[in-house]
Amino acid sequence: MSVINQMERLADSCRTYGPLCVGLDTDPSYLPPEVLEKYESPSGAVLAYNRALVEATASHAGCYKVQIAYYEAMGLPGLKVYKETLDFIKSKGKPVISDIKRGDIADTAKAYAKAHFCGDFETDIITLNPYMGFETLNPFVEEAEKRGKGIFVLLRTSNPGMIDIEKQELKAGGLVLDRVGSEIERLRETFLSKQIIKSGDASPVGAVVGCTEESDAFDLRNKYPGIFFLIPGYGAQGGAARIAGTLLQNAGGTVNSSRGILLAWKKDPALTEKREAGGLTLEQITESAYKAAEASTKELLEAKALCSKA
Amino acid sequence: MSVINQMERLADSCRTYGPLCVGLDTDPSYLPPEVLEKYESPSGAVLAYNRALVEATASHAGCYKVQIAYYEAMGLPGLKVYKETLDFIKSKGKPVISDIKRGDIADTAKAYAKAHFCGDFETDIITLNPYMGFETLNPFVEEAEKRGKGIFVLLRTSNPGMIDIEKQELKAGGLVLDRVGSEIERLRETFLSKQIIKSGDASPVGAVVGCTEESDAFDLRNKYPGIFFLIPGYGAQGGAARIAGTLLQNAGGTVNSSRGILLAWKKDPALTEKREAGGLTLEQITESAYKAAEASTKELLEAKALCSKA
Repeated sequence: MSVINQMERLADSCRTYGPLCVGLDTDPSYLPPEVLEKYESPSGAVLAYNRALVEATASHAGCYKVQIAYYEAMGLPGLKVYKETLDFIKSKGKPVISDIKRGDIADTAKAYAKAHFCGDFETDIITLNPYMGFETLNPFVEEAEKRGKGIFVLLRTSNPGMIDIEKQELKAGGLVLDRVGSEIERLRETFLSKQIIKSGDASPVGAVVGCTEESDAFDLRNKYPGIFFLIPGYGAQGGAARIAGTLLQNAGGTVNSSRGILLAWKKDPALTEKREAGGLTLEQITESAYKAAEASTKELLEAKALCSKA
Repeated sequence: MSVINQMERLADSCRTYGPLCVGLDTDPSYLPPEVLEKYESPSGAVLAYNRALVEATASHAGCYKVQIAYYEAMGLPGLKVYKETLDFIKSKGKPVISDIKRGDIADTAKAYAKAHFCGDFETDIITLNPYMGFETLNPFVEEAEKRGKGIFVLLRTSNPGMIDIEKQELKAGGLVLDRVGSEIERLRETFLSKQIIKSGDASPVGAVVGCTEESDAFDLRNKYPGIFFLIPGYGAQGGAARIAGTLLQNAGGTVNSSRGILLAWKKDPALTEKREAGGLTLEQITESAYKAAEASTKELLEAKALCSKA
């Protein structure tokens, strides 16, 4: 059995379908009451919306990202819907990222690797928090080597609070996040030297880099030309397509939009009357999501083209 | 309805029953095959062991800590057992810590707060990873203010990799972990000024401090005399009771032992024959766990007394 490098598969899918990562951070409150009430439970409505969204946006999504927090918040039925959402995305042949941001030591890290790379919650790629040290990445890196699974490590997040630790200057020079970046680069070199990847392939260990500050985007894109990025901060989070365009150069990346897609129906002028009358259907809100995905993909591809000319 | 400060309740329970935190990082492989096979599923065996352990160790446990990774690793049935384990500990009137080490931004952090402070997975106290910035703590701190819930923030973990980020020296002076400590202390002062806690009460925001290095333990215990500690690194992780004794001074703390209790049956001389014959019962392995909890509590209380004399 040949091992598929899921990060390269993701990069390839983004070349075919565009760089948009549709984020399924699906809170039941993101659905209008008239749609919610058609389902037996809020989690049932979420599953129906997720499936309809994946169907509708497939032609404009490089991948999907499922944020597990929203499913944990719905308790046990929520985690069933989490599993069923992953299953549905996989059944459509699309790469899926589980945004879990786990990070723990030794046997606990192994348990998390088992949890998310096997069994009910098996996914292609996960996000990880490196705070407790680089040894905490090991069980996941092993799964990358053996089975092609992918990892995005938090490098430069899109929230204002990233100045508290990530951007702190070190006495020895550089920032805290530079240490993380060096480790991600070191892992890429290890994959190359072990011939697990070829030069030009996406390294199984990518980085999360938010598109919220132009100079950071420019620096990190130049520093790590061979690393594939997961890019939050576009759309509802206030990030700019222009900065995403910078981050999409070199090895490229995938740009997440969650509420920008999920809540597109709230701003869709075509739905004003129905929205005000409380008469929306799942099909209509999904159609708004489709249009938002199409427009986002266009905007991101234009920003990427503009940057590559600059 | 008066709000109970769960961290003070935990501190109080540790004064009554001793400082031991029994860690239910229960992997099915921690049970002998002859016990496992008596249950319909590995997760069913884990639940039975957890319940028997809680019953058996209640007189020597200040609290219980449930490491969610092991339950996630068992998929959906595992998370059902996770919930049922929390329910059982609560039904026994014991404080429970959910070791989840989550950390995320804005609405995602809110979703995690909802997931672990309400509904199926409701717990008394959780662990949090502060890497993405101190704003990520806000939704949890709000729950502490409103409903008395508690938080342990990672300060100085017990693994060797904590040198990679936590112990890095900053250009502006101090270590990365000192920034986290200052934030934990600042939150305590806010709770005091808002009269949510009284001087001498445990602050709802405690800290995770491993008992793996004497000088760090001494420094952090002196720097944050009013902060209650969750102390990993004792027992199976190779930490020393003596260092735990240092950390138990001032506001005190609770010392976790997971495999030291869960796997006590493997080293129990009273079980040698039955172990070799493959004839162990759940009652016998639980009895070993009880003896280990009793011995650990004795050792920790002696270490604490020795330190307070020094």
